[in-house]
This record gives sequence, structure tokens and C-alpha cells, in this order.
Amino acid sequence: MEFTINQIAAMLGGEVQGDGNAKINMLAKIQDAKKGQLAFLSNPKYEQYIYTTQATVVIVKKDFVPRKEISTNLLLVDDPYSSFTALLEEYHKMISFQKTGIEQPSYIGENAVVGKNIYRGAFSYIGNNAKIGDNVKIYPHAFIGDDVVIGDNSILHSGVKIYAGARIGNNCVIHSGTVIGSDGFGFAPQGDGTYKTIPQLGNVILEDNVTIGGNTVIDCATLFGDSTIIRKGVKLDNLIQIAHNVEIGKNTVIAAQTGVSGSTKIGENCVLAGQVGIAGHLIIANNTSFGAKSGTAKSTQEEGLKLMGSPAFDVKDYYKSYAVFKNLPDLNERLRELEKKVMARVKQH
Amino acid sequence: MEFTINQIAAMLGGEVQGDGNAKINMLAKIQDAKKGQLAFLSNPKYEQYIYTTQATVVIVKKDFVPRKEISTNLLLVDDPYSSFTALLEEYHKMISFQKTGIEQPSYIGENAVVGKNIYRGAFSYIGNNAKIGDNVKIYPHAFIGDDVVIGDNSILHSGVKIYAGARIGNNCVIHSGTVIGSDGFGFAPQGDGTYKTIPQLGNVILEDNVTIGGNTVIDCATLFGDSTIIRKGVKLDNLIQIAHNVEIGKNTVIAAQTGVSGSTKIGENCVLAGQVGIAGHLIIANNTSFGAKSGTAKSTQEEGLKLMGSPAFDVKDYYKSYAVFKNLPDLNERLRELEKKVMARVKQH
Amino acid sequence: MEFTINQIAAMLGGEVQGDGNAKINMLAKIQDAKKGQLAFLSNPKYEQYIYTTQATVVIVKKDFVPRKEISTNLLLVDDPYSSFTALLEEYHKMISFQKTGIEQPSYIGENAVVGKNIYRGAFSYIGNNAKIGDNVKIYPHAFIGDDVVIGDNSILHSGVKIYAGARIGNNCVIHSGTVIGSDGFGFAPQGDGTYKTIPQLGNVILEDNVTIGGNTVIDCATLFGDSTIIRKGVKLDNLIQIAHNVEIGKNTVIAAQTGVSGSTKIGENCVLAGQVGIAGHLIIANNTSFGAKSGTAKSTQEEGLKLMGSPAFDVKDYYKSYAVFKNLPDLNERLRELEKKVMARVKQH
Repeated sequence: MEFTINQIAAMLGGEVQGDGNAKINMLAKIQDAKKGQLAFLSNPKYEQYIYTTQATVVIVKKDFVPRKEISTNLLLVDDPYSSFTALLEEYHKMISFQKTGIEQPSYIGENAVVGKNIYRGAFSYIGNNAKIGDNVKIYPHAFIGDDVVIGDNSILHSGVKIYAGARIGNNCVIHSGTVIGSDGFGFAPQGDGTYKTIPQLGNVILEDNVTIGGNTVIDCATLFGDSTIIRKGVKLDNLIQIAHNVEIGKNTVIAAQTGVSGSTKIGENCVLAGQVGIAGHLIIANNTSFGAKSGTAKSTQEEGLKLMGSPAFDVKDYYKSYAVFKNLPDLNERLRELEKKVMARVKQH
Repeated sequence: MEFTINQIAAMLGGEVQGDGNAKINMLAKIQDAKKGQLAFLSNPKYEQYIYTTQATVVIVKKDFVPRKEISTNLLLVDDPYSSFTALLEEYHKMISFQKTGIEQPSYIGENAVVGKNIYRGAFSYIGNNAKIGDNVKIYPHAFIGDDVVIGDNSILHSGVKIYAGARIGNNCVIHSGTVIGSDGFGFAPQGDGTYKTIPQLGNVILEDNVTIGGNTVIDCATLFGDSTIIRKGVKLDNLIQIAHNVEIGKNTVIAAQTGVSGSTKIGENCVLAGQVGIAGHLIIANNTSFGAKSGTAKSTQEEGLKLMGSPAFDVKDYYKSYAVFKNLPDLNERLRELEKKVMARVKQH
Repeated sequence: MEFTINQIAAMLGGEVQGDGNAKINMLAKIQDAKKGQLAFLSNPKYEQYIYTTQATVVIVKKDFVPRKEISTNLLLVDDPYSSFTALLEEYHKMISFQKTGIEQPSYIGENAVVGKNIYRGAFSYIGNNAKIGDNVKIYPHAFIGDDVVIGDNSILHSGVKIYAGARIGNNCVIHSGTVIGSDGFGFAPQGDGTYKTIPQLGNVILEDNVTIGGNTVIDCATLFGDSTIIRKGVKLDNLIQIAHNVEIGKNTVIAAQTGVSGSTKIGENCVLAGQVGIAGHLIIANNTSFGAKSGTAKSTQEEGLKLMGSPAFDVKDYYKSYAVFKNLPDLNERLRELEKKVMARVKQH
């Protein structure tokens, strides 16, 4: 993948100062960039580097006027930072979607239907009756169970496991080792201390634009026709636990190692930090935020709460309480002193 | 899979009212059921739905007397709920065990022995000298190391990894991505700040009827002939850490993201909630329960304790302490006020 | 694998008393050892067992004088414990490295280069342009992406996933299900509540002698040319989260289920216990230790701190505070009593 500066200028709608035919094969930071690479200058703090950079071209603001001599080519645009990130995204898409075709051996079941322009890595498995959309990338060792449906442009990284019957939307990205649709943790205690497994017969639905990190687990719903649902635009990090029948609302973001227990419904646009724990059968209002390591066993109705602690309450109040907690031995001592004083005075009288 | 109402009546020992030849292919909730589906009515709160349901048949109690006209067929039994769950289980078994035969390519090592009626998914791997029982289902990408022994009727979902030498009992279910028998975390500090790996030479034993969720990890024991042991009937959820030489007692249930450190012995019929942490070299008595996010570094001798907090103590006491914790800034203020008052009186005198 | 006592004596530089031609095929504890096995006696507490052990040979200290008759052969060395552990290590290496050759089917991409004496398990995948060193063991279902570089003597257990561009050093061990190089969790909030994915274009570097447990996840760095770095000699346990752009210093040890957020730099020789959480963009000084379940959102500058709690502070102070926390209801009551007393006296006057 190599482009001339002129080609990039055409993509970004920018103007070239210097050699438009010079070739670029990489993007880099201005202070690190080497020959053949493209950098950008947005924050004035970094201006010094433009006079020494090895970059073949630097994207700068239209009105940029060098204060010293410069040896790099320039590409003048309205907003260098957003032009650079646009290039980053294009580059990322190119990398993400460069794989196509079918590597062998790979497995495809009976009556499975696959779309156009897909990648099926070696040792990938597509079950019976599965339906896979266009431009889907299925990396090596991905497992797609029977009757699974996957929309267009979704990416399943190596070793993703999707149990039978799950439905994955368009533009989803699922990272390595993530498990979708394993049995919910449901066991009925018997009189003799043993447990009987409650059959888990529902599925998992991922709506469009969902991104999931590595080694996360999402359990299927318990009953026929029920689903564990991850709504449009949700972003889940690594090593997260989503139990059976949970629903995660639109555009909610959940950081690594957080767990949500069975049948809980998390609202839209919530932010759950790392290692949070949410108990089962709760409803969490929209725009709620949970601080790292917090937990709750109570539903919330008011939107926009910022919570901390376990059980969680208002984050500012938590830190105030915690500040006193750190001084509890001192507080205890003060109380003891006061008790002595008061007792002494009582005796005195 | 389609059955007539008469066939189901025979299975359940029930009596048909209506068309016994009508066909059923699915189970559903009474309020959602459609033609061709079977529902049940147990809780009187749901009686209204029996007059409008589209279900082809509804299981009801023997003495049920409709108060309005009904259009669905009836199947009269002693206990509709347990009849329905019995059908659920049967259905689940049918689904779980419907896969049989060998998909290609799959790998089987030298001197490996496999039982009757097993499923070996594509890309599944069976190591040298492994012994696999009857009716075992080995899904795609499952890895079974050398010398592993697996009992009858066990299910290894896609991508399960079992290291060499592990022993898995009968009727075990292991979900995708779970790792059994990885090296324990043992390192001997050297004088120069580096660590030397302590060889991990033991194995893991799962007794019968153990169920394990997805992406859980169980390390092997350290020494030759020693085992990390998961006793009969234990249920482990997703993303759990079980360290080397741990023993989990019979019928103990552990929820997601909990960790048990090396050489700890958890008793029978314990319940560990999610995100619990148990330190190493402890003995936890039978019937102990740990609340979510609690932790301990101390053994317990008394049975039946219910613990919370980190370090954990009695759950009721924890919540009482936590209630005061939430008001600590206020308590601190009250103490300060009192100090002032007492000080003022001291000065007064 | 069978050795005569004479062969083992030669390896350890020891002297045989008894039948040097007797054969050994296993190592065991002195109290458990059976015929054909080798045990050792180091701690005098165990001396009793040497008179009854079934072991074919026991390693003892040079100056050991039996007080009763013994039937086992003896192998006299300077330090029985370290001789035994040396044998353990040799045995472990033999087991770890006994696999060689290529099982089929396995996949190797274009221009990939592999070293001498390597093991490529069935269904293992090596991407285009990957470079694999000598004596590397790649177990079944391991995935090595394009352009990955792996040093000599490293072991990738079954189902390890290494994304394109990662670099793995010499003598590294990575356990099953671990993911190296998944996308960092980076999303830019948009005006309409949705998130845009920030392309993750860096890689992961593991230096030499790094050991990683099962189902751990290490994200790649965000920018071109940047790396998430795990320094020489680091030991990571199971189910750990290492976010994008993190650096873990030399010889640091991290226990299971701990998470380190983006761009944080952990110093050398630190010890993080289980279920610890470290926030993003921090610098943690060398030799810092974090107790189980602790967390922090603050950098530390002083070396050698031992921290506990969330947010974490000095471990001793934490336990002192926690001791008072457990008695907070009582403390609250004492304060109330005192308030009453003081109030009564105020009224009295």
C-alpha cells in the first residue's frame, strides 16, 4: 500500500506544497516519522519538530507559515488533526478488510449461505443453515454454530465462538476468544443438595455496530424465544461477563472485567468502568455511570447518576466517606478521648 | 422433531381433551405461544391467557375447569409445571445430543480410544493415548491433550482446551474457551530479582456431573500425582480462576469472575457469588456463602456462615457497618461538634 | 523415559549406595513413592519415611546416616532439595519439549519462516511473513497472525491467539486461550450519543522469559510504531487484562483477574495480587505491591510501597481502618451515647 502525496491530497481535499509525486507508505508521529512516512502538525507545541522531521510529508493547517526553513513537503488542509484521523481510519479499514477469499481447510455446513467478498480463514467453522452477510471476515478458528445469522461487514477474529441460533448485526467486531451464547448459569437445587441443570434454550442477539473485546462471555437466554440482547452501538471490553437474559441499552460502554448478572437491564448511554459488578434482575436507568470496582444490588430510576462503592452510592459522597474511612483509627481514638473526658467530668460532679 | 399430543401425553402420563393427533414442534410461554406449540398453565395469574392462546395444546392441572370457552386442546396432568420442565429437559437433551459422527478434518492421536456414539466436530483434536467414553460430544476446535480420560455423556463445547493428563468424569459439560490443566502460577524468586519457574507436574480431576461455563481456567496441581480437584456436582460459571491444588467440594456453586488461589480447599454445598476472591492455603467449611465481591484470607471452621466484605465477615454486620460508612462524613462532623462543646465546657470551668 | 540410578547420579554429581542399575521412571514424594520412583529427603521431619518408603531410590544429604535398616537405594548429594528440583525441571523440560514435528492439517502462510526443531500441532496457523525461531512449540489451534515474530524456545499452548505484528521474545510460555494484540478499547464519543472506533494500529511486544497464564488478554497500542510492552521476566497469571499502551516493568508478577488500564506504566519487580485494578495513565514505582482486590487511580513515586484498599493506601493502615469499620455500628452508638450525655449536662447547666 503506497500512495503519492497528490493522491492523499485528493482524498483529503488539500493542497500540496513540494513534491506531489513523493511516495508515502506509513503514518507516524511528527517526532518519530521517517522517510516515506506522513505526519501531521496540529498542536503548536509540536511546531519545533516540523523543522527537523524526516517525514516525507506533514499535514498542516492551511494558514501555517513556517518560521524557519523546512525540508519536508507540506499538505495544507482545514483541520490537520481530523484529516490525519480520517487517514488512520481509512488505513485501518484497509488493514481490517484486506483479507478475502477462502483458506483451506475450512468447514462449511449444509445449507449455509455466505455473502459476497467474505474471508474464511483456515480452520474456521460455519454450521448448518448459518447465514453470513457480505464482506464478513471470519478469521481462523472462529466457530459459527448452526442457524447463526451474521449481518454485513462484521469481523469475527480468530477463535471467536458463536453458539447455535445467535444473531449478529451489521458492522460488528468481535475479538479473539469471545464466547457468544453459552448456557446461562441456571441450576435448580434439589432436596439432596445436588443441582439440576435448567435447560437454556434462548439465544443472543447483537444489534448493529456492536464491538466486543477478547475473551468476553455472553450467555444465551433461558427460555425459547427469549434473547440476551446487546443493543445498537454497545461497546464491550475484554473479559466481561454478560449473563442470561441481560439487555444492554444502546451506546452503553462497559470496561474490562465487569460482570452483569442474569435478567438485568442496563439502560442506554451508561458507562460501566472496569471490574464493576451488577446483580441480577435489576433495571439501571439511562446515562448511569459506575466507577471502577463498584457494585450494586439495587435498581436505579433516576437518570444520570454517578455511582461508586459496593453497594454503590453517589461518587462524591463515596470519596468523602472513604476519606474518613482512612482516618478511622484516629477518629476512634478521638472518640475514646472524649469519652474519657466526659466520664471524668461526670465523676467530678 | 415433531410429536402428536397423544405421544406427549403418553410420555407424561396425562389425559388429552381435544384432538390428540394435533402436532407439536415447539414449547412456549402461554402468552406467546403460536400454532404448533405447547404451553402450560400452573400459576392461576396466567389463567386469562388460556382463553386467548394460539397454542395447539396447553398442559393444565387435572382438576382444571375452564370458566369460559377455550379453543386450545388440553393435556391434563398432576403437576403442569414439573411436566413442562420435564419436556424442556427432554428437548434440551435432544438438542445437546443430536450431533453425532465425525466431521472432517479432525485429528486423533496414536492409541487414543473413543467410545460409542460420539461426536467429533471438525478441527477437534484428540491426543495420544486419550480415552473418551460413550456418547461424548467434542465440538469443533476442542483440544484434548495426551493421556486425557473423559467419561460417558460429557460435552466439550467449541474451543475447550484440556491439557495432557486431565481426567474428566461422566455427564460433565464444559463451555467454550474454558482451559483445564494450565500451569499453576508458581515462581521461585532468585537473588537477582528474576523468577525461576517451578515445574507444574500434577493434573486436574473433574468428578461426575460437573458443569463449567465459558472462558474459565483451572490450573493443574504442582507435584506429580497431585491433582486440582473439582468434586461431584460442582457448578462453575464463566471466567472463573481456580488455581493449582485447589479442591472444590461436592455440589458447591461458584458464580462468574470469582477466583480461588492455590491450595485452598472449599467445602461442600458452598455458594460463592460473583467476583469473590479467596486467598491461598485456606480451608473453607461446608455450606459457607460469600456475597458478591467479597474476599477472605482466613480459613473458616464453623459451617453455614454467610459472609460479605473484604476481608469478609457476617453479611448482616457488613451491611450495618456499611450503612454507617455511608454517613461517615456526618459522623465525623458530629464528633467534631461534640469535641468543641466539651472543650468549651472544659475551658468554662 | 527411564533412567538408571547411575545415570541420574552422573547428572547430579552424586554417589550411589545400593543397586545403581535399578531403573527410575518417575519422581514422587517420599511418603507416596512407589517402586520405580525417585524421592528425596531434605527436611529431617520426614526421616521416618525413609525406613518404610517403596521408592527405588531416595536422594539424601552426603552425611546422612540411617538410624534403622533401610531397603531403598540411596543417592548421596550435597543438597537433596536442589538436586530434586533440578531433576523436576529437567523432567518438565523433557515433557514440554518432547513434541516435535508437524501434525496435519496445519497452515503456514506465504513467506513465513520457521526455525529448527519446532512443533506445529494440527490446526495451528502461521500467518504470512511470520518468523518463528528454533525449538518453538506451537500447539494445536494456536493462531499466529501475519508478520508476527517469535524468538527461540518459546511455547504457545493450544488456542493461543497472536494478532498480526506482535513480537514475542525467547523462552516465553503462553498458556491456552490467551489473546495477544486485540484492539485497545478506544472510542470517541459523537454528538449523537454514538461512539466512533479509534483505529488501533500499534502492536504488542513480549520481551524474553515472559510467562503468561490462560485466557489473559493483552491489547495492542493505539498508534503506529507504539507498543504495549511486557518487559523481560514478567509473570502474568490467568484472566488478566492488560490494556493498550501499558508497560509492565522487568520481573513484575501479576496474579489472576487483575486489570491494568490504558497507558499505565507499572515499574519493575512489582507484585500485584489477584483482582487488583489499576486505572489508566498512571506511573507505578518499582517494587510496589498491591494487595488482593485493591485498586488505584493515582501514580506512586516512592518505591517499595505496600498498598491495600480501593483507592489503595498503606496496607497496615488499611487493616487498622478496616478493624474500626467492622465496629462502626458500635462506634456510632458510643457517639450517640456521648452526645446524649453532653447534651444532658448542657441542659443541666
